[in-house]
Amino acid sequence: MRAVKKASFPTPEDAEAAFYEAIERGDIDALMEVWSDDDEILCVHPGGERLTGVEQVRESWAQILRSGRALKVHLADQVVVQGMMLSIHSLHENILVQGESRARAPVVVTNVYQRGTTGWRMVVHHASPAPQPAGAHVDPPAKTLH
Amino acid sequence: MRAVKKASFPTPEDAEAAFYEAIERGDIDALMEVWSDDDEILCVHPGGERLTGVEQVRESWAQILRSGRALKVHLADQVVVQGMMLSIHSLHENILVQGESRARAPVVVTNVYQRGTTGWRMVVHHASPAPQPAGAHVDPPAKTLH
Repeated sequence: MRAVKKASFPTPEDAEAAFYEAIERGDIDALMEVWSDDDEILCVHPGGERLTGVEQVRESWAQILRSGRALKVHLADQVVVQGMMLSIHSLHENILVQGESRARAPVVVTNVYQRGTTGWRMVVHHASPAPQPAGAHVDPPAKTLH
Repeated sequence: MRAVKKASFPTPEDAEAAFYEAIERGDIDALMEVWSDDDEILCVHPGGERLTGVEQVRESWAQILRSGRALKVHLADQVVVQGMMLSIHSLHENILVQGESRARAPVVVTNVYQRGTTGWRMVVHHASPAPQPAGAHVDPPAKTLH
């Protein structure tokens, strides 16, 4: 049985690492441990509506992870704006879905972490589709074998 | 002639009000006064790439405002996460373009303001297309007159 909120994240970077590890493992409980318990947590998936509160945020991630297809998330271009109690991380996610040969179109993300009594927790995850980088390699359509 | 950074924004709300007023007036100088001078300012327009630094951010807004078509921005659903030195504002922008009869599809926005020696300044503006709200009224295609 899992204890509630056992994890502690001494830095925003620890929280961010745990967030993406949980996505790659498909572990919804570990993912939600990274989020603050605050009612005002905010999550926007690419092209999706803004979600608020633990219940909506958990349900949306449960749907994503429920597919059972493993995800690999490569992070790039990180920029951090660090405050005393809040830390803003801007980055690109390059997501590879198990069974697909190429990464999905990149996603531009603003993650916000808040310092609380149990370390740093995520309060905002705003993800949106980024254009393909200029000069990105595009594979020709795969040839069928029959 | 305009003095540089004359404006002072005692609260994040003052900075946000000045930001949207500058957009509605099409005033690029007033708009850039709201932004921090920090090299690490970050801006994402809906569907666009992530822009960093004053030069890229200014050029992108200059292009938007250069069209000369007045914009009205109605803000809704604001949620604020307030820290000592950083303030996160999540909201929806409903934008009406002069000459168009209906608002564009809503935009979901994360704005981040940072407290500095001259008050609060914008450091992040992340805007992305939001889905139309369920039940949104959709006009039939306009009839042509000939």
